[in-house]
Amino acid sequence: MLDDSFHVFDTTLRDGAQREGVNLTVADKLAIAKLLDEFGVGFIEGGWPGANPKDTEFFQRARTELSLKHAQLTAFGATRRAGVRAADDPQVAALRDSGAPVVTLVAKSDDRHVELALRTTLDENLAMVADTVSYLREQGQRVFLDCEHFFDGYRHNPEYALSVVRTAVEAGVSVVVLCDTNGGMLPADVTRIVTEVREATGARLGIHAQDDSGCAVANTLAAVDAGATHVQCTANGYGERVGNANLFSVAAALVLKHGREVLPEGCLREMTRVSQAVAEIVNIAPATHQPYVGVSAFAHKAGLHASAIKVDPDLYQHLDPELVGNDMRMLVSDMAGRASVELKSRELGVELAGDRETLGRVVDRVKALELAGYSFEAADASLELLLREEAGQPVRYFEVESWRAISERRPDGANVSEATVKLHVKGERVIATGEGNGPVNALDRALRSALEGVYSALATMELSDYKVRILEGTSGTDAVTRVLIGSTDGRGEWTTVGVGENVIDASWIALEQAITYGLMRQGYPQG
Amino acid sequence: MLDDSFHVFDTTLRDGAQREGVNLTVADKLAIAKLLDEFGVGFIEGGWPGANPKDTEFFQRARTELSLKHAQLTAFGATRRAGVRAADDPQVAALRDSGAPVVTLVAKSDDRHVELALRTTLDENLAMVADTVSYLREQGQRVFLDCEHFFDGYRHNPEYALSVVRTAVEAGVSVVVLCDTNGGMLPADVTRIVTEVREATGARLGIHAQDDSGCAVANTLAAVDAGATHVQCTANGYGERVGNANLFSVAAALVLKHGREVLPEGCLREMTRVSQAVAEIVNIAPATHQPYVGVSAFAHKAGLHASAIKVDPDLYQHLDPELVGNDMRMLVSDMAGRASVELKSRELGVELAGDRETLGRVVDRVKALELAGYSFEAADASLELLLREEAGQPVRYFEVESWRAISERRPDGANVSEATVKLHVKGERVIATGEGNGPVNALDRALRSALEGVYSALATMELSDYKVRILEGTSGTDAVTRVLIGSTDGRGEWTTVGVGENVIDASWIALEQAITYGLMRQGYPQG
Repeated sequence: MLDDSFHVFDTTLRDGAQREGVNLTVADKLAIAKLLDEFGVGFIEGGWPGANPKDTEFFQRARTELSLKHAQLTAFGATRRAGVRAADDPQVAALRDSGAPVVTLVAKSDDRHVELALRTTLDENLAMVADTVSYLREQGQRVFLDCEHFFDGYRHNPEYALSVVRTAVEAGVSVVVLCDTNGGMLPADVTRIVTEVREATGARLGIHAQDDSGCAVANTLAAVDAGATHVQCTANGYGERVGNANLFSVAAALVLKHGREVLPEGCLREMTRVSQAVAEIVNIAPATHQPYVGVSAFAHKAGLHASAIKVDPDLYQHLDPELVGNDMRMLVSDMAGRASVELKSRELGVELAGDRETLGRVVDRVKALELAGYSFEAADASLELLLREEAGQPVRYFEVESWRAISERRPDGANVSEATVKLHVKGERVIATGEGNGPVNALDRALRSALEGVYSALATMELSDYKVRILEGTSGTDAVTRVLIGSTDGRGEWTTVGVGENVIDASWIALEQAITYGLMRQGYPQG
Repeated sequence: MLDDSFHVFDTTLRDGAQREGVNLTVADKLAIAKLLDEFGVGFIEGGWPGANPKDTEFFQRARTELSLKHAQLTAFGATRRAGVRAADDPQVAALRDSGAPVVTLVAKSDDRHVELALRTTLDENLAMVADTVSYLREQGQRVFLDCEHFFDGYRHNPEYALSVVRTAVEAGVSVVVLCDTNGGMLPADVTRIVTEVREATGARLGIHAQDDSGCAVANTLAAVDAGATHVQCTANGYGERVGNANLFSVAAALVLKHGREVLPEGCLREMTRVSQAVAEIVNIAPATHQPYVGVSAFAHKAGLHASAIKVDPDLYQHLDPELVGNDMRMLVSDMAGRASVELKSRELGVELAGDRETLGRVVDRVKALELAGYSFEAADASLELLLREEAGQPVRYFEVESWRAISERRPDGANVSEATVKLHVKGERVIATGEGNGPVNALDRALRSALEGVYSALATMELSDYKVRILEGTSGTDAVTRVLIGSTDGRGEWTTVGVGENVIDASWIALEQAITYGLMRQGYPQG
């Protein structure tokens, strides 16, 4: 457990869940809390008990089902309503009864919001802060105060904003969190305002930044530079509108660039895994270009610098991807050179090193295929099949005799697709037919139907992604179609590429390779 | 045209194209350049002429096909090779011959990269800078210098990094651009280093920030705070690895938050449209949560604050979304929708003005279709057909009974596609068959074959563009396919859109509309 001098506070389960389209079950929230704890955050804000039944249930179940190594669970709620005592406010009672050792209270600190949204007086708002904080402190809970719209409020009426901070400190809060609720701040102003508030009040300050200016991470770091010792973030930056400060980017910068040990030893290496696992649970595709953890974050276009990268990778990356649990990836593109193909083959586990003739042949073939429209950047599985073939270890589980796909709109208005494939599998001729919601889907089903008697593990594989791109013909040739197919077998994912005169031809090539690569992953001996 | 005191420099076509999976055709690049010019950037870096044939062709075609209102085209290239004169280096000659008024030269400024990647001496690197800049200046071109890996180099060997800056200034560059090539910098260090370089050299400085720390926008603004007057960005932040500083976020912050007029009057309102159009061309789904321009950027969860938002929306948003051409989503009223449909119908020559009921019906139908995956932004012809139908003037030249497309690979390896359509034209039942290089091509030929006896002008029409996009299903539904078809009759072009369960269904819808719209353009009376 880290000491209390710096707080990494996660609010994925509360503010992050505000992201458009996200709808977490209690089981989802418990699973995410476990992951955040593995990542080593100090505080996990679980939700608003009393405000909705799901969050109340989360805190109930967390008592028995959630065993946290690093983090403390915190409950979120508002200061008491105007005109009642905190002790008589059922919403405050729900916070008290949540079982959370820490409560984060949200309070208005922009005088315009007090009057327009809360419809109460400025003095009553201060009394609501003082009363609610004191009451929960008496109940034995630690209290943080989120000052909503703080920066906008401070710019409009600094004296009132400061009086909210002072009132909270006097009532016993541990941290006053300055919130850029509308997300419009830029780092230079954050530094200035946090500095002024710290000097004016002496309070321990935190920062909660929304990303509407695309500066939430920088604003968070700017506040830390100005003395804030508590950062509120969400996994992958999920949150309302554009989102919140990204927990992973903030933590990595603090540990690796500021040199502050804000996470327990070893936790940073869990970052890429935790980021992807949270994305899976939230059911949002992991952002491929996300800093530090994205699949593209340490991907290098090959060619130009490949020889220098071999000498010293650190000249071409801002940090060692292993530190955040990610990998350097070489992209084989039309700039491919020998050095990059060699690096790539090593990465894929196909040993070509030193075999200059094979390397040269692969480079030539990749170049020719990319000229014809192929792109291996995102299709490692196709590239690996190509490398194995050129290395004299071609992968074949079946031979294709012919296929046919039919799509039609019938007179009754129904759209129907059907496909037939004829293959040779382990010496047998197999004919199979499949129906689908389109010609590619029908071909996929027919192909599986032809193979599944021999390769039963096909049942675990499925297509997870399908992308089509029409490429303009170069110098007078016709346009060609490129298809990327993503596949999964529950243990991993792979991508294959096909190029053809039309979408069906291209899809077939990618499909055939997707199945072949999947069978190889399962360890089947070739037929 | 703005004065020269501040440069908004776009490198989408060069550095942005380095994004994993992006592969732009020359036509794509010309279309994007036109959009960037409409957005009002001062400089558009078109690519590296001489380094690859596509970029050479781009600069050639730009001379006749690209008419820029605001921007100057710039060519990117490297300083001359070691040991040759700039005048004798073919790569430098390609820059000279590109026709671009401005050249951006990239040079090493990190001594380790000079020695390891360039494999030359520190002095020769300086000579390469001086010689290449002088030579291109003598040819009448303006020169900017991109100092690659500047920040890392400055931290390692500040004297050498500064000597590169000084050498460039003495040789006549207009701007020295400090590049955070590995993207690892944080804003506080950028401010410090830019300030130091400015004080040490007096050079006019620019900033080129990569987003590996999630701080590219903030780093760009930090450099401007420290006196940089030239910012290099890419549309939507596309770029290598994580990406580059996002042009739209940087421009919006400079104009709306810094109060600097870095774009021509009125251009900022084009931002959302340009962002989405570039995404369409690059074939990457627009980032829904992108600052300023994302569809979620000004989306407010309804409920809690609705009444306060009605009183004063500015309490809940960091700026008025209209300023950047976006909308506050919760408050999108039928009025707003009506007004824009009315404008559009006037633009398309379908008189709906004042017919409130029809306007409301069109708005509802467009909303429903867009929810189902349609996008009318780029498909005016489909929108016009829809408007005419709702206005009681539906356009029909034929009725479809049924169609069927067959694609097959035959045992001899040949790929063959064939389609049959059954139509009713002017009271006659017509059956026609077509062959093609794919199922859509075959359907197009069959359809034309069925109609050309009656509508001979069909011979002047052809498909000029075909785009396919797989759209992720929302809330548990399956993915759908969207097809855009561009058509031409030698006098003009039009675009239609179709959405369906698969590419054939979607193509058929767009195809049927493309032919219908083309016949209407020819003035045929309806059958």
